Amino acid sequence: MKKAGILGGGQLGRMLLQAAANYPIEVHILENDPGCPAAQFCQHFTLGDIRNFDDVYQFGKSLDVITIEIENVNLEALEKLEIEGVKIFPRPHALRTLKNKIIQKQFYADQQIPSSDFVITENAISVNTYTHFLPAVHKLATEGYDGKGVQLLHDAKDLHQAFDAPAVLEKMVDIKKEIAIIIAVDEKGKTAMYAPVDMVFDNRLNLLSYQLSPAELEEKTIWKMEAIALKLVKALESPGLFAIELFLDNQGAVWVNETAPRVHNSGHHSIEACYSSQFDMLWRIMLGYPLGNTKQILPAAIVNLLGQPGYSGPAYYEGLDEVLTMENVFVHIYGKVETRPGRKMGHITILSNERQELLYRANKIKNCLSVKTSS
Amino acid sequence: MKKAGILGGGQLGRMLLQAAANYPIEVHILENDPGCPAAQFCQHFTLGDIRNFDDVYQFGKSLDVITIEIENVNLEALEKLEIEGVKIFPRPHALRTLKNKIIQKQFYADQQIPSSDFVITENAISVNTYTHFLPAVHKLATEGYDGKGVQLLHDAKDLHQAFDAPAVLEKMVDIKKEIAIIIAVDEKGKTAMYAPVDMVFDNRLNLLSYQLSPAELEEKTIWKMEAIALKLVKALESPGLFAIELFLDNQGAVWVNETAPRVHNSGHHSIEACYSSQFDMLWRIMLGYPLGNTKQILPAAIVNLLGQPGYSGPAYYEGLDEVLTMENVFVHIYGKVETRPGRKMGHITILSNERQELLYRANKIKNCLSVKTSS
Repeated sequence: MKKAGILGGGQLGRMLLQAAANYPIEVHILENDPGCPAAQFCQHFTLGDIRNFDDVYQFGKSLDVITIEIENVNLEALEKLEIEGVKIFPRPHALRTLKNKIIQKQFYADQQIPSSDFVITENAISVNTYTHFLPAVHKLATEGYDGKGVQLLHDAKDLHQAFDAPAVLEKMVDIKKEIAIIIAVDEKGKTAMYAPVDMVFDNRLNLLSYQLSPAELEEKTIWKMEAIALKLVKALESPGLFAIELFLDNQGAVWVNETAPRVHNSGHHSIEACYSSQFDMLWRIMLGYPLGNTKQILPAAIVNLLGQPGYSGPAYYEGLDEVLTMENVFVHIYGKVETRPGRKMGHITILSNERQELLYRANKIKNCLSVKTSS
Repeated sequence: MKKAGILGGGQLGRMLLQAAANYPIEVHILENDPGCPAAQFCQHFTLGDIRNFDDVYQFGKSLDVITIEIENVNLEALEKLEIEGVKIFPRPHALRTLKNKIIQKQFYADQQIPSSDFVITENAISVNTYTHFLPAVHKLATEGYDGKGVQLLHDAKDLHQAFDAPAVLEKMVDIKKEIAIIIAVDEKGKTAMYAPVDMVFDNRLNLLSYQLSPAELEEKTIWKMEAIALKLVKALESPGLFAIELFLDNQGAVWVNETAPRVHNSGHHSIEACYSSQFDMLWRIMLGYPLGNTKQILPAAIVNLLGQPGYSGPAYYEGLDEVLTMENVFVHIYGKVETRPGRKMGHITILSNERQELLYRANKIKNCLSVKTSS
C-alpha cells in the first residue's frame, strides 16, 4: 500500500481520512495537537510542527505522497522531499506562489488573470500614502487564514487598522456574488471542475451565511469563471486540488479573489452531493487513479457550524436533535473538544431539488443549532 | 465525548469509523489482527481476542457504549459489562438468541415468526435419521459465518457432507428471491426500516452475484416482510441495527432465513444511496440521537469484490482504473493487504434511476474487475 502524509490534522484532514478509507492507502498525519480532529481517525499520527523543517522532512522522507490541509507549512522541507522523489500535491513551487499573498497577486498580474488592482505595503505607515486607493482590502502576505489577516479599509478613518507587516492592499470590488470553483488536476494535466458554489455572506456580520451549489449564474458568467479557473491552474503547473474564490461584480465582470491549493470549505457539499467528493478526488490524484465525476446528484446547501460568541470550553451542540430529524440533512461535527467564539466546529449539508427548500432549511438550521458549552 | 467500542476490526468496523467521523465520539477497536481494515483508521486500537472474556471485559469497562461487527464474541463479558452499566448494542440477551443457530430457530418457532421447518442434529450420525427431511440445509449452531458452516444436503448421497457438531437441519425453501431488510431500533423502541434489498445469487456458483435496492416486489409481499421484520425486532427486545434475511418462495410465502444483529453486507449501498446509512444509523442509536432517514436518494446496486480463486498474497486490483472512470459508481476497497480466494476485499456501489443501467453496470464491473496478486 502507498504511504500518504497529510500536513495538518484539522477537519480537512479528518474528512480526507474518511475518504481514504475507500482505498488501499496508509495515511499519516503530522500535527502538533494530539487531540486534533484528524488524529482521532488515524493510526499513524506524528506529533510535530508543520512549519518546522526537520519535523516536516523527517515525517515525509519515508512517504510516497504528501498533501497539505493548510498553506502555512515548511516549504523548504517539501522542496527537499520533492527532489528526493516524494510526490507533493500541490507541488512546492505552486504552493510558494499561493502561500504569500503578495506573490499570489503578482502571479495573477503576470499571467493576466483578472484580479483587482493592488499595491504592496511594507508596513502600516506605507499604507497612509494610498488613501486615494481606498476603499480597499488589506491582506497580510502570510499567516492570514480563516478570515484572519484581512482588514477592510473603507476610507482614511480606517487606516489605523492597517497591518504593520508586509501586505497587499487590494481595490475593493463592488461585489454582487462570491463564487468558489473547485478544480482538480491530475499528474498528466487532465482537469475536472465542480459546479460553482455561491458563498452567500451575511453583510451585517461579515460572515459566510450559507453556500449554495450549483450557484445561480448566467451561462456566460459560468463560462468566464471556468475559463479563468482553467487558465489559473494551467499557469500553476501542478497537479492537485485547487479552490478558486471569485467575485462577480455588479457590472458583470469576474475577478479572482484568492486560490487555495487544497481541499476547501466551499467543497464540503461534494461529500454527499457529488459522485466524487473533493476529498475522494484528491486521493484519486495522489494515487494516480483516473479523476472522478464532479457531477452533482442533487443541488446542495451548506451551513457552517461556528462556536457561538461568548462561549469557550467543552462543546455542546444545542439544537442538534432537531437538525438530526430533518429528512434531507447531513450532520458533520468535527470532534473538536473545545469550542471558542467563531471556531469552525462542523457543517451541515442539505440536499434538495428545490432551491426554496435549501434556503428554508439553511435558515432553519442557523436558527435552531448553536455551539455552546456543556457546563 | 462518549467512548464507543467495536468488537472486531474488519471492513464493517472500518465503515463504522468512516461514519463516526461525522460525530463527536471517541472510537475504540478490539481485534487480534493489528493490520486489520479498521485499525488503519482508528486512534484507539486494542490488540486482543473478541472471544476471550478478559480481553472483552478489560476493553469494555471504561467505555460508554459497545457494538459488534461479528456475532462470535464473548457474551459473558458483555453480560457483565451490561450489568455494570455499559450500554451494549445489541443487548447481550438478543445476541445470545441470534448467535447460536439452534436457539435462533427456536426463537422463530416460539414467536411464530415464519421460518422453514427444522430439526436439531447433535452430530453427523444423527443426520442420517432425517433422510425423509431432505432436501435441507445443514447449518452449524456456532462458528458459521460468511457462508462457512452451511451445507446443502439435497438427498441421501450428500449425507457424508453433514457437520459432525451441533447444528440445525432446515427444510430447503423453494426460493424465488432472497431479500434482506435492515431495521433500526432505538432505546425507546422506535424503529426505522430500509427498503428491501434483492440479493441476486448466481445459482451456478452459489455466490451472491449482486444486490439491488429497492427490491422489485409486490406491495403485499413488502407488507408481509415489513410486518415480520417489525415483529421479529420487537420480540428481540433490544435496540440496535438488525439485518433480516428473508426468502420469498415460488408460492408467494415469506420465510425468515437468518437475522444478524449488526451492520450487514446487504446494507452497504446505504452509504451513498440513503440519507442516513446503516453505519450512520447505528451511531445515532448508540449516541441517543434521533433515528435517521432511511429513504433512498437513488436506486442502487452493489457488486462485491472477492479474492479471485487461485490467488493468495499481496492484493492487486485488476481493472480498477476502468471502474473508477464509470460515472455513477463508488469504489470501496477495504485495505486488506493480502487477498485469498473468496475473501471479501471490497464492494462497488452503483447509483441510477434506471434499473437496466444498474444491471448493465453491475455485469460490466463483474467482468472487468478482479482481485489478483501484485507479483
